[in-house]
Amino acid sequence: MRSGIVVPQGLIAHGRGEAFDYLLGEETLPAALAATYAAAAFLLTAKHPVVSVNGNAAALAGREIVNLSSVISAPIEVNLFHRTPKRERLIATYLKWLGAEDVLGVGRSASSTIRGIASSRRRTDPRGIGEADVVLIPLEDGDRAEALSRDGKKVIAIDLNPLSRTSRASSVSIVDNVIRAIPALTDASRRMKKMPRDSLQRSASEFDNQRNLARAIQEMIRYLRGWA
Amino acid sequence: MRSGIVVPQGLIAHGRGEAFDYLLGEETLPAALAATYAAAAFLLTAKHPVVSVNGNAAALAGREIVNLSSVISAPIEVNLFHRTPKRERLIATYLKWLGAEDVLGVGRSASSTIRGIASSRRRTDPRGIGEADVVLIPLEDGDRAEALSRDGKKVIAIDLNPLSRTSRASSVSIVDNVIRAIPALTDASRRMKKMPRDSLQRSASEFDNQRNLARAIQEMIRYLRGWA
Repeated sequence: MRSGIVVPQGLIAHGRGEAFDYLLGEETLPAALAATYAAAAFLLTAKHPVVSVNGNAAALAGREIVNLSSVISAPIEVNLFHRTPKRERLIATYLKWLGAEDVLGVGRSASSTIRGIASSRRRTDPRGIGEADVVLIPLEDGDRAEALSRDGKKVIAIDLNPLSRTSRASSVSIVDNVIRAIPALTDASRRMKKMPRDSLQRSASEFDNQRNLARAIQEMIRYLRGWA
Repeated sequence: MRSGIVVPQGLIAHGRGEAFDYLLGEETLPAALAATYAAAAFLLTAKHPVVSVNGNAAALAGREIVNLSSVISAPIEVNLFHRTPKRERLIATYLKWLGAEDVLGVGRSASSTIRGIASSRRRTDPRGIGEADVVLIPLEDGDRAEALSRDGKKVIAIDLNPLSRTSRASSVSIVDNVIRAIPALTDASRRMKKMPRDSLQRSASEFDNQRNLARAIQEMIRYLRGWA
């Protein structure tokens, strides 16, 4: 926050995540792993996968996101809830410093719009999310997740809250901390790259996100029961 | 935060609270109400009750805390995790502006210490927490809650996380949002003031905090089950 990557509101969102992470015992549980494999299948079979990054994601897992982007050959696009040109550039510079080749969505390059959301958050890069068929959104708000879904894109969310609109609007929701989920997704993608395409497509199409979210909620219930 | 009452770390703590509040459906549930009645009984039968206030508590429920303090005739003491003389004075000034007659714990008046905690957080006011038998701590950290308990004081916590060390170390833990819990505690205190002292003492001594926390956790489990 002091360097300008994260806004104060991002700290509140981070705190919400911490609380849900407690309820997972701060571990990657089976539901998150199942979602991770499905996410890798979606990303590896996509025509134009894109990784959307906001301030919290960059601050928590910038390096891991750059690695993932290179393994799955997907560009990174900056998309901020509290958008300022300065913060956009700051995050892009930080990601490039971590090794990102190109960072989309900065300044005038974000000239496309997603329908159904107000404010500057609707802006996307025509070379990035604009033409993407699969978008990975670590730590995104519900409005954007729903709008991207309505736009016909497959949305992969990483969200510790299994009840959130983001989790429920997505095709795949990884209920896990980004600092564990992104490296796990990178590993899964690296290994699954060698699998035949039709087998990956089957994995993607067979994944039932609502059922998997119910499983994540059951995991939290099990954790709480251990205390009651 | 911009006015200096809350520190950035306080925003993260606030976010954690928000997440647990979702799991209560953002409502005051029966376990919280039972704890509120027990808390009122403890406060009304105390010799020297004190209300401890930090930045988040002042920002979220300053006016409500001042009202409660007047209804139960308990002084307010400022106790900050991230203590600076400037922030201490700022919070005291704010509480006085809201109607507090006196605010303890500011500057040199915090000359007593609680054993067992490091840093400036161990400092307390000899006229306040120093001589208190019952301390209400809305939004306190586990170290201080445990240290106050070890010091033989009855601790009443308001904490949305029923698993926290604060909740578990306290004699009464109200698992609820301070913005609902403080007005409810004020109402309960006003009504229970007329009750005979021995009846209040019985209410206080019969309260089983660990059992009531288990009940609060059950309420969260019930909420999660509705989603799974």
